[in-house]
Amino acid sequence: MIDPGQHLAQMRAAAPLVQNMTNYVAMNVMANVMLAAGASPAMVHAEEEAPEFAAIASALTINIGTFSAPWARAMLKTAAAARAAGRPWVLDPVAVGATSYRREIGAQLLAQRPSVVRGNASEILALSGRAVAGKGADSVDEVASAEAAASRLALNHGMVVAVTGAVDFVTDGTRAVRISNGHDMMPRITALGCSLTGLVGAFVASQPAFGATVATISYFGLAGEIAGRNSSGPASFQVALIDALYSLTPEELDRGARITPA
Amino acid sequence: MIDPGQHLAQMRAAAPLVQNMTNYVAMNVMANVMLAAGASPAMVHAEEEAPEFAAIASALTINIGTFSAPWARAMLKTAAAARAAGRPWVLDPVAVGATSYRREIGAQLLAQRPSVVRGNASEILALSGRAVAGKGADSVDEVASAEAAASRLALNHGMVVAVTGAVDFVTDGTRAVRISNGHDMMPRITALGCSLTGLVGAFVASQPAFGATVATISYFGLAGEIAGRNSSGPASFQVALIDALYSLTPEELDRGARITPA
Amino acid sequence: MIDPGQHLAQMRAAAPLVQNMTNYVAMNVMANVMLAAGASPAMVHAEEEAPEFAAIASALTINIGTFSAPWARAMLKTAAAARAAGRPWVLDPVAVGATSYRREIGAQLLAQRPSVVRGNASEILALSGRAVAGKGADSVDEVASAEAAASRLALNHGMVVAVTGAVDFVTDGTRAVRISNGHDMMPRITALGCSLTGLVGAFVASQPAFGATVATISYFGLAGEIAGRNSSGPASFQVALIDALYSLTPEELDRGARITPA
Repeated sequence: MIDPGQHLAQMRAAAPLVQNMTNYVAMNVMANVMLAAGASPAMVHAEEEAPEFAAIASALTINIGTFSAPWARAMLKTAAAARAAGRPWVLDPVAVGATSYRREIGAQLLAQRPSVVRGNASEILALSGRAVAGKGADSVDEVASAEAAASRLALNHGMVVAVTGAVDFVTDGTRAVRISNGHDMMPRITALGCSLTGLVGAFVASQPAFGATVATISYFGLAGEIAGRNSSGPASFQVALIDALYSLTPEELDRGARITPA
Repeated sequence: MIDPGQHLAQMRAAAPLVQNMTNYVAMNVMANVMLAAGASPAMVHAEEEAPEFAAIASALTINIGTFSAPWARAMLKTAAAARAAGRPWVLDPVAVGATSYRREIGAQLLAQRPSVVRGNASEILALSGRAVAGKGADSVDEVASAEAAASRLALNHGMVVAVTGAVDFVTDGTRAVRISNGHDMMPRITALGCSLTGLVGAFVASQPAFGATVATISYFGLAGEIAGRNSSGPASFQVALIDALYSLTPEELDRGARITPA
Repeated sequence: MIDPGQHLAQMRAAAPLVQNMTNYVAMNVMANVMLAAGASPAMVHAEEEAPEFAAIASALTINIGTFSAPWARAMLKTAAAARAAGRPWVLDPVAVGATSYRREIGAQLLAQRPSVVRGNASEILALSGRAVAGKGADSVDEVASAEAAASRLALNHGMVVAVTGAVDFVTDGTRAVRISNGHDMMPRITALGCSLTGLVGAFVASQPAFGATVATISYFGLAGEIAGRNSSGPASFQVALIDALYSLTPEELDRGARITPA
C-alpha cells in the first residue's frame, strides 16, 4: 500500500541535494520544478568534477536529451561513482531509439545499473531492444504496448521502470501499478518528462525506489490536474503546474492520487 | 496570393518533426513555441548523431547564437546531410557581424544553401557582406535599410530571405511582401526571433518556402498582438504569446494577417 | 549617499551591451531579466570569439555554475581581455566550494581581478579560503557570517564584494551597506542570483562599482517585493518579478529602497 503523501512529506523534510546531468532544454524548468517541490537541484556535468560531486549529492539523475561525446563520458563515470558511493541514480533515456549513437550510449548507461528508468513508451521499448522507426522525443507508442517490455527490463536489471503517458505504469518486475493522474496539456510543454525524472531523483534519494517513484508520478500528475483548471494554454499551464507543485500538501495528494494495482 | 490560415492548418496537420541546432538561451522557449503551434521539435546537435538525424526529421534549423567549434563542425555536416536528404533547412545568423569567427562560419553556412534565412536587419546586412560595427544580438538597423541586401542575397543564393523587425520583409528575389503584424514588446523578450526561426522550419517542412515563411511570420506577430492585450510586462507577455500560438485558429489568422506586396 | 533611482535611470539611458559567460540553467532567465531592466545582454562564450567580444561589450559577467574545461579556458582569457580593454567584469562563483575543480578555477578567476564578486554567504566564505563541507548552489550559511570574509576579500583584491541573502551586504573594503529589500520566495526560483549578477554587470558598465552594485541589489529586491504581492507560487512569482523589473521607475525605487550603512 503506497502512501504518496507520506513520500512527499519525507522528501520535503529531507530537501535532498540531487545532482542532474540533463539536457539544455530541460535545465531551467527541471531546476524550478525541483525547487518548487522542496528539493535542492544541482546541475553538475563536467568530467572534471561530476564524479566527485556524485558522492556529495544524495541522488543522481542522467538524461541524454542533448548529450554529446564529452557529456557521455562524464555520465558513464558519474553513474559509476554514484553506485560506488551507494547513491541511487535515475536514467531518462530521451529518444534512445532515434539514432545509433543514442542506442549505444543508452545500453552503456543501462549497464551502470540505474535504480530507476523513466521514459515514454517508445523509449522503454527501444531500451528493451526493439528496433524502432526513428523519431524525436515524443512517443509514438501507447503505454500499454510497453508494459511487458518494462517488466522484463525491471526483472533483468533489478530496477524500477516507469513508463509515463496518458496512464502511467510503474513496475519493479514483481509489483506493478498504474497511475491515472495527469492532464492532456502536459505533452504540449517541453521537458516536463525530464523535470519529472529530476523529481523522481529527489524522492528516491532517501526512500525505497518503487513506492517513491509511484508517489512522484502521482504528485506530478495531480499538480497537472490543478494546473489544467488554472490556465488557458501551455505556457500558463506550466506556470500553474510549478505553483501547484509548491502548494500541494501531502493530504491533498493522498486525496487526489489515483493509483491502482496493475 | 498567400493564405496564411491554410499554411497554419497544413502545418498542424503534418505536425512535422523539426531538428533544431540552436543556442542555449533559446532552446526551451523555442521548443515550447513549436509545441504550442503544433510541431514536434527535437534539439539534436552532437556531431556523432546530428547528420544522421537530419534524414529522420522533416526540416532542420541552425542558429549560431551561442555556438563554438564543435557545434560549428556539426552544423556544417548536418546542413549538408539535410540537403543530401532533400530536407529544407533554415539559417538564423545571430549577431553574424559581431566577430570575425561569426562572419567566417556564417559564410560557410550560407554556402550550404539554406532554404530560408531569417534575421534582423543588422544580421542580413552583415551576411550580405557589409562591414558592421560590432554589436550583440539586437539590431541597430531598420528593416527598410536591409531590403535591397535581402533581395540580392535571395537572388544570388536561390533562397528566401526574411528580415524581421517592426515591419517584416520577406523575399525570394523576385517576389516580396511586408508583414505588419507584431507588438512593440517583442524585442524585450529574449530568443523570440530564434523561436520564430524554429516555427519557420515547421512551416517550410512540407510547404513552398516563400508562402510558408510569410505565413509563419504573420502568425507569430498576430499572436504577439493578442499577447499585448493580455499582459503587463515582458514575462507575462511571453506566457500570453505561447498561449495565443496554441489557441489561434486558421480563420483568426486569415482575419488578422496584415500582409502587403512590397 | 547612494541614489539607486539615479543609477537605474543612468543604466537605462546607457542600455549597455553586456557579455555574459554564464551557466545553462540561467541563460534564458538572465537574458530576460536584463532585457526587462533595459540592458542588452549577449551570451558569447566560445574561446574563438569571446575575448574579441569583450572589447565590443561595455561589461562582462562570468558565472561558473555549469562550466567545464573549454569554458574555463575561455573565461580566463576573456576576463583578461576585458581588463586589457578597460571593461569592468563581475564574477559569480557558483558553488565554488563544492569541488576541488571549482576551488581551483575560482582562484584563477579571482586572480584576474574582477570589479565585483557577487555570491551567497557560502560562496564568499569558500572564495576567501574557508574549507567548506561540499554543497550545491544553495547557501548553508547566513550573510552575517560572511561579512568579515567579504571585507577582507574586497580589501585584498581591490574590488566590491556583494553577499546576497535575506539581508544583503555590499562592501568595497572601506565602505559597507546592508540592503533589506527582497522576498522569501526568491530562493525557491532557480538562477535568480545569476540573473542579479547580470544586472550588476549592466549597472557597473558605466558607473562606479560600489554604488551601482548596491543600487542593482536594491532594485532587484524591490521588484521581488512587488512580485510577492502579485503571485501564488514560485513560477507566477518569476513572471511578476520580470514584469516588475520592466515597470519599476527610478522614483519608485528611491521610495522603496532599504539601504543602511553597515
